This record gives sequence, C-alpha cells and structure tokens, in this order.
Amino acid sequence: MPGLKIYAKDIEKFEGNKIEFFGWLHTKRILGNISFFVLRDKTGYIQATIKKEIFGDNYEKIINIREESVIRVYGKVQKKPKGGYEILAEEIEVLNQAEPLPIEIWNPEIKTKFINRIQYRFLDLRRPEIINIFKIRSSVVNYFREFLINNDFIELHTPKIVEMGAESGADVFEIKYYNKIAYLAQSPQLYKQMLMASGIDKYFEISPYWRAEKSHTTRHLSEFWSLDIEVAWIKDHYDIINIAEELIKYTIKKVKKENKEELEILNIDIKVPKDMPKITLLEAYKILESYGKKLDMYSDLDTEAEKILGEYFLKEYDEPIVFVINYPWKERPFYHMRLEEDLNWTKSFDALYNGIEILTGAQREHRYEILVKQIKEKGISIEPLKYYLEAFRYGMPPHGGFGLGIDRFVKQLLNIKDIREVVLWFRDPEHTTP
Amino acid sequence: MPGLKIYAKDIEKFEGNKIEFFGWLHTKRILGNISFFVLRDKTGYIQATIKKEIFGDNYEKIINIREESVIRVYGKVQKKPKGGYEILAEEIEVLNQAEPLPIEIWNPEIKTKFINRIQYRFLDLRRPEIINIFKIRSSVVNYFREFLINNDFIELHTPKIVEMGAESGADVFEIKYYNKIAYLAQSPQLYKQMLMASGIDKYFEISPYWRAEKSHTTRHLSEFWSLDIEVAWIKDHYDIINIAEELIKYTIKKVKKENKEELEILNIDIKVPKDMPKITLLEAYKILESYGKKLDMYSDLDTEAEKILGEYFLKEYDEPIVFVINYPWKERPFYHMRLEEDLNWTKSFDALYNGIEILTGAQREHRYEILVKQIKEKGISIEPLKYYLEAFRYGMPPHGGFGLGIDRFVKQLLNIKDIREVVLWFRDPEHTTP
Repeated sequence: MPGLKIYAKDIEKFEGNKIEFFGWLHTKRILGNISFFVLRDKTGYIQATIKKEIFGDNYEKIINIREESVIRVYGKVQKKPKGGYEILAEEIEVLNQAEPLPIEIWNPEIKTKFINRIQYRFLDLRRPEIINIFKIRSSVVNYFREFLINNDFIELHTPKIVEMGAESGADVFEIKYYNKIAYLAQSPQLYKQMLMASGIDKYFEISPYWRAEKSHTTRHLSEFWSLDIEVAWIKDHYDIINIAEELIKYTIKKVKKENKEELEILNIDIKVPKDMPKITLLEAYKILESYGKKLDMYSDLDTEAEKILGEYFLKEYDEPIVFVINYPWKERPFYHMRLEEDLNWTKSFDALYNGIEILTGAQREHRYEILVKQIKEKGISIEPLKYYLEAFRYGMPPHGGFGLGIDRFVKQLLNIKDIREVVLWFRDPEHTTP
Repeated sequence: MPGLKIYAKDIEKFEGNKIEFFGWLHTKRILGNISFFVLRDKTGYIQATIKKEIFGDNYEKIINIREESVIRVYGKVQKKPKGGYEILAEEIEVLNQAEPLPIEIWNPEIKTKFINRIQYRFLDLRRPEIINIFKIRSSVVNYFREFLINNDFIELHTPKIVEMGAESGADVFEIKYYNKIAYLAQSPQLYKQMLMASGIDKYFEISPYWRAEKSHTTRHLSEFWSLDIEVAWIKDHYDIINIAEELIKYTIKKVKKENKEELEILNIDIKVPKDMPKITLLEAYKILESYGKKLDMYSDLDTEAEKILGEYFLKEYDEPIVFVINYPWKERPFYHMRLEEDLNWTKSFDALYNGIEILTGAQREHRYEILVKQIKEKGISIEPLKYYLEAFRYGMPPHGGFGLGIDRFVKQLLNIKDIREVVLWFRDPEHTTP
C-alpha cells in the first residue's frame, strides 16, 4: 500500500519536483512580499515559501490563513540555502479552516485544565507529548500479542454481555437487553475457564471490560482494557507467574528498543526488569512491618502497603515489578485454588508495578466437588453458575491464568500520575462524553 | 517460554525416557491383561500401553476410567512394533474424571442440535471441525492487524459506553450507568473521525460492538466484533477501497498459506481474490435487472440483490469479493460525503463476499458547514453531536474509513451457513448464556 500523502520526513526524495503537500499550518512568518508557512504532519515539519510575485492579489488572503487550518500546498521542492528542504508554493488551498482554538496547545507555559483537554482531545493529541503516549500504548498491546502468538496462544473472543459478573454480581452495569436484564462483563473469567475444558490450552484476549465502581482515584476507570490469558496443564501458579514475567519483560524490552523516539519525546527512561522479585504475602507482611505498617493476618494489601513494597524493591533490588504470591482465601474469589497444606491461603498472585497492582492471577480450582464447596463457602448462589460448573464435569485439566490491566500497565510504564491520561476518552461516574 | 506439557506431536523426542504425559482419554481397547488407552491433546494422539503385570490390583480400576477424563500417565516412551511411539504406563492418575457426556461429539453419524452444542460449547470445541474454525478466526484477526501495523496504522481504543449510537439512536442497548442512562456503542464512528483531527492519520481498532436488532437471520448478531479503520489525507473513497482490497487479499492469501492444516481439517479450499471487481450501484442495478431483479432508483441493495451479484461475479469473473460503490444519500448516514456532480449519491461503498455484505465504508464529509447541513437534512438533533462537530472546526483533513464485520468475514471465508457457528457463545434476542 503506497502512502496516501507525501510526508514531511520524505520531502527530500522529491527535490526538483513539483508536489502536493498536505498538512496543518503550524506557524507563519509574514515578511512583506515573502512569507513562510511551517506545515505540520504526523512525521514532522516542512516550510513553504510564499512569494507575492507568484500569488499577486491572492497574497493577502493567503497570509491571513489561520494557524491549525488544514491546507494543500502545490509547488517545487528545493534545497534551502542553509540546509534542509522547502516548497516554493505555487498554489495554496484551504481544505478546512481553523477557528481560533478553544484551548492552548503549543505554548508550554499555559497549562490547560485536564477536563478541557479531554473536551478537545483531538486538539490535545496534536501535542507530541500526548500522542506519543498512545503510540506507545499501541506498541505495548502489539508486543503483548506478538509474545503470545509466538508462544502458541490462540486469540478468542468471549461474550461481553453476560448474565452475571465474574464474581459476586457487585459493581456490574445493568443493560436493558431486549425484554430482560443483562450485565456488562467485568472480565472473561468464567468463559476463559470453560475454554480450558475444550482442548484449547493457551487462550488470550484483549478486550474492554466494565466495573461500576463509584471510586474516584487516579487508577480506576469504569471502562478499561484488559489482556487475559488462561493456560491448561500447569503444575501450579508458578507456571503462570513465569509466563507473566516473560511476557512483561519481552514487552518492556521491546518498547525500550523500538519506541526510542517516542520515549525521548516523553522524556522517559524506562527500567527493564531483570529478575522480578517474588515473595509470599507472609513475607510481604514482614517487610511492611519493618516499615511500621502492620497488617492483620489474612488481610489483603491496601494501597499504602503496595506503595511501600514498590519502593522497597526499587530501592533494595532496583526492580520496578514484584510478584506477591499466595493471597488469603477470604480475600480471593471462589475459583482460586487453595494451598493443600493450609486452606487459608490460595495459589494466587498479584504483580505490582512501581507500587500499583497491574495484574492478578491464580491457579484455578479444577476439581468439580471442591469448586462447588468453595462457591457455597463464599455464600454465592450455585444457580447462575450452572453452565460454568458443567465444564468441570467432563474432563477439565488443571489450569490458571491472569488478567492484566492495559491502562494501568501503560500508566506505570510511563510513570504517568493519572490513569485518565492513557485513555483517549475516559469513563468514570460523571463522564459518558465526549 | 518452555512448553507446559509434553505434547503428543513431540513424543518421539523422548524415546527411551520416562515422562509424564497429560491428556484426555480419547478411546480405550481392553484386551484381558493388556489394554491400550489413546490419549488426546491439542496436537494429536498418543497410545499408552497398560499391563496388568505392572498395575496389579489397580488394573481393573484403571481400565474402567471413563473416556474424556483428564489423566496423567507416567512411563517410558518406546517405539511401537508397527511404527510410531507409545508410552508403557507405570502410573496413571485421574486429574478430572468425566461423567457420561451430555452430547455426542465423536460419532459423526449423530448430529447434535445446534443449541445443545452451544450449551456444551466446551465439548463441541473438542471436535477438530469446530476448533479449527476458531484457529482460523484467530489467524484472520492476526493477519488483519499485521497488515495494518506494517502499513503504519496505530491501534487505538475508543469508548464503548456512549451517549448516543453511531447514527440515529435506533437499535442501541441502554445501560444503567450510575445515575444516568448511557448506551452501548454500535461502532467507533464518531470517535474515529474525531481522531482524524488530531494528526493521527491511520487508525485501527478491533473491538466488540452491539446492535439491538430483533432480527433472527443467519448473518446477524446482537454482539459482534468489528475491525475499524480511518485514514486521513485521502483523495476520495477509492483510496479507502484500495486499502480494504489490499488488506483482504493479504489476509486471505496468508490464511491459505499458513492455515493449510486447519483448512484441510475443515475440508475447505478458499479462493484467493485476484482483482476484486468494482462497480457502481447504478451498474449493479443493470446487472440485477438482467437477472429479472428490478430495483427502484436510489434504493439500497436487499439481501436477494446482494446474493445475485455475488453469484454473478463468481460465475463471470471467478471473483468471490466485489465492491459496490456510490450508494444513494437517502440510504446512507449523515457523515457520508456526497458526490459533487449529483447529491443523490454518496462517496460510499460496501464489499460483498460471496453475496453477503462484510464491509461498509465511505469518504466522510469533513467540511463543517456541509456536515451540519447534512445532519439537519437527515432530521437528526444537533445537540448530542456537538462534541463531535467541534472536531470539524479547527482543522479537519479529508478522511474516510470502513468497518469490517469479523464474524461475517470468517463465516464467508469458510463458507459457513450460520454466523453463530463462528462465535464461541453468540448473543441474540434470546441468549445471554452460556
């Protein structure tokens, strides 16, 4: 497929030729009978020189074209005396004129409020420090997929409209689905496990999911994108931890290598993990205690605890990512497998990236009777889970998997404070638009 | 990442070694003091030989393990007298026992009702003729993406919870979104166009979407997956048609080459398009008329018309895919650009694949005033489109794009009658489960 327009970066190839160049009028310099337009496209900038002797009566009109308008310039590509190339304009046409901008995008001194930036996200994205976040996001998703496909995973699409949430039915969005009520999926959990009974033993999916959490934090979204994998024939949850570690290493390494230019523009030096520390939650309790943070036995890590652990491993081991393993049964969903030696703990784990949880996984309970027992123990109704439970009655191999929050991963990778910065148009309790 | 289990296809590498082999008990042959289990995994079959002299009192229990149970066999890999390899079992453990199956999956004589197959989709998928549909689906999605990434497209995620559908607000699912009402996106249309004002000039996205159509046909789903692209700086809609053609050719060629094994199992010989015919809707009317199908001027193609055209081009040109171009304004949404020379027609197109529409695209109207006029002409309220219209006021380049139905594409590629066959768990007015 040939390029659809000539890009600024390729202009030298056309030296001596007359071409059509399309772009935004980035800046202009008006000097009597000769003026200079700097045109912008996604690859860079190119100067168009505009002479009154060529445009005659139209000259005044042309030099008054407003910045940020979309224009077409026709003219000859020539070397500039001081190096580089320019177009000597013969025709200039406005394809879409810009009114005065509602937000400032080029003056770095003027900070626009976040909510105004999102209102005019299409303008916000014209700034290199914004668009490059999304270029890296695109790469991250692509490298995740590349790693999985290279390792024989199959990409499958599971339902997003469901009869119940993944776990308890809390925090789900309700849909008016024809004549009944249905819900938006919080995760592919039940479906991805059912697939493990089918012979597919390495599944992945990249998809949006939804959680109706009323919380307003810098790390929650009502609509988020997740990478999910599920793998059969595992020995235990350490097999899944291993895959997660390799996947993340592959992706971060590749971003560092292939997205050099974007990282430079964002002025970010990303740290490539070497050997991600792995500790049990019991060990985490001890580290936290030495930092004056005492957690009760069998309690989950809270936001502060995750932050302390993140700082500890960055300082002591120079590692940004750490796996915390074996969370307590009372804090984990019914489908997590418990440790044989102590039923208070599960074969589960989280990965913390610079002190924020980005990934949760576990070996799942694949034995029908035990799974039913665990559902009852959690006080969950068996009835809506019946179709799922059937998958455990006709040959279900041992399996496990994880869900990785793509938005959170990108936020932590690029050290961005607010998760809403890494989403084009975020959804929270107040925002369904733009 | 090392494999998590030893696969049947790799067994010869372990000749002379003792290994653990995991799989489903596919079939068994009981012959007095020696029995043979055929074990299955996703790569094939391997025989385990079970001798009474080794298992002693456990022998009877072991040979009674039910087919489709998940078992672990430990033993030595040895050559079989007649070629191939087998495992001489020393230990056999049931990891998950199978109850008698609720549907028949291995006897080709017994046809299970579709709805029962979906109820037990995890069993249905154990059949090679089913799972291979999904292996090809996974490839299709991957090759689409590969083509686009190789051609400098960036993958972006636009909102799925929205304030209005893509077009008129009809056929949308309503969500209880905190204290207000929102809707499930029918397409990324408004967002992908807004992105064109940002400098991103080649966007793509692969995501689920939803349409609340009550129709029960073999080609409609309430939840479907779509590939969407949008490209700026186009001359006209033929630039987009060109991209669509190259993308589809690339994908079909690559499936034919890389998915040979899957296609063989499905017994399908796919036709690689050479030069997809491109006709205007006016020309289509004429062809249809010669087949006795008279359509009114400015009317859309109906299902029968699409079918006739599909058959015509397959017969006359040996081409499975045809582009029909310039649909009438009255049948197209407000954002399609009209032909300058006759406002009754739009710069739009559909692609028909074996007589079914799989793709719809157009050049979009990028001129603010004309776009507003077109919205009014369609009788649509401006108010909910305000945030979208803003994107046309500050430098919007000419642009266009298409949406391609992934489910339909796979259905037509594999010549499958019912679209529900190419979806793991479909959603229609009656089904929100499994």
